[in-house]
Amino acid sequence: MKLYSYFRSSAAYRVRIALNFKGLDTQIIPVHLLRDGGEQKKPDYLRVNPTGLVPTLVDGDITIAQSMAILEYLEETHPEPALLPADAPGRARVRAIAQTIACDIHPLNNLRVLRYLKNTLEVGDAQRDEWYRHWVGLGLSAIEDMLVQSAQTGRFCHGDQPTLADILLVPQVFNARRLNCDLSAMPNIVRIDAECNTLEPFIAAAPARQPDAEN
Amino acid sequence: MKLYSYFRSSAAYRVRIALNFKGLDTQIIPVHLLRDGGEQKKPDYLRVNPTGLVPTLVDGDITIAQSMAILEYLEETHPEPALLPADAPGRARVRAIAQTIACDIHPLNNLRVLRYLKNTLEVGDAQRDEWYRHWVGLGLSAIEDMLVQSAQTGRFCHGDQPTLADILLVPQVFNARRLNCDLSAMPNIVRIDAECNTLEPFIAAAPARQPDAEN
Repeated sequence: MKLYSYFRSSAAYRVRIALNFKGLDTQIIPVHLLRDGGEQKKPDYLRVNPTGLVPTLVDGDITIAQSMAILEYLEETHPEPALLPADAPGRARVRAIAQTIACDIHPLNNLRVLRYLKNTLEVGDAQRDEWYRHWVGLGLSAIEDMLVQSAQTGRFCHGDQPTLADILLVPQVFNARRLNCDLSAMPNIVRIDAECNTLEPFIAAAPARQPDAEN
Repeated sequence: MKLYSYFRSSAAYRVRIALNFKGLDTQIIPVHLLRDGGEQKKPDYLRVNPTGLVPTLVDGDITIAQSMAILEYLEETHPEPALLPADAPGRARVRAIAQTIACDIHPLNNLRVLRYLKNTLEVGDAQRDEWYRHWVGLGLSAIEDMLVQSAQTGRFCHGDQPTLADILLVPQVFNARRLNCDLSAMPNIVRIDAECNTLEPFIAAAPARQPDAEN
């Protein structure tokens, strides 16, 4: 398999964690999102992935865009270890936590949106950072509430085995810390993030461990 | 089943279409997103869904947030008629189209974001509409490219049966038209949207057909 990735992309980070769990040896093809106006906007990459976003997974002659679609594909084609619970209600809970990050937090704070705020709407840096923290705070607070409300929260977001919920959570928390978001009111999230980061699949997927990492 | 819904919410519209396909008789509980500061922010609703967003599906003692998580749950618990293809690559393609809408278009243009632009960033109406059309244009263009590139595009986004891709597409096109987005360069999307809107599950889920519909 090949993964088009950028070390700092949290969507690529999610997929790297899952590939590590599944033990799938994958060639990383770096796509530099900043250099030269963004390699993801070049015609060569747009032929691979018309959205112009990373990640893209290539598995033989199959090419898949969108990190959540990739994660579900990996789960279906390489079911062990399972990253979704066996029961439909449990799967729904895990997907709801994952989608809260994938839909309610990350899309508002990715590079292209922050650039639009700055370049087109001429929003200042302080207001742009405030925007970032606003959506992170709203989304992670909702997840903290979901974790508090449910007896199914365990060592990880859902029970005592890592799931897609944790795989989405760790890269989002990594980003939140980079932008100095306040996580002090989210003890479950902080605890689960720390727990995940003792596990090799999470550790090896971290931005600093990637072939295209920069300081 | 009960669905917390708002007639104009495109995320709720998606779930309504799927419920209609599955033939599931569902009680609609309207949550008015504008009235009285937004009923979705009231403590009673936040106990049901801590994200403060619609839709929420209640199935007996199971409560599910996030439209994509709900759609996957309905597919797992009521597999007929199938709204995902049987093969993993096909499922990945359908989910990639669906997630492009769920992650790359809709989150940037929902009510709370448009309000933040107006109230906090003091963006004017014209620039706010331009923001809306910018993200719709980028996202739907990418989907048009995916449809053009693949031999699997048929009467619908994936083959000749409706899938989750179409169920995400129709509400997004509905919203795009409300904001006068230019769809003239997207003939496949326009064709598939029209095809879907001849089918009763799509027709009955439309905003104007909901119990809480307003002019």
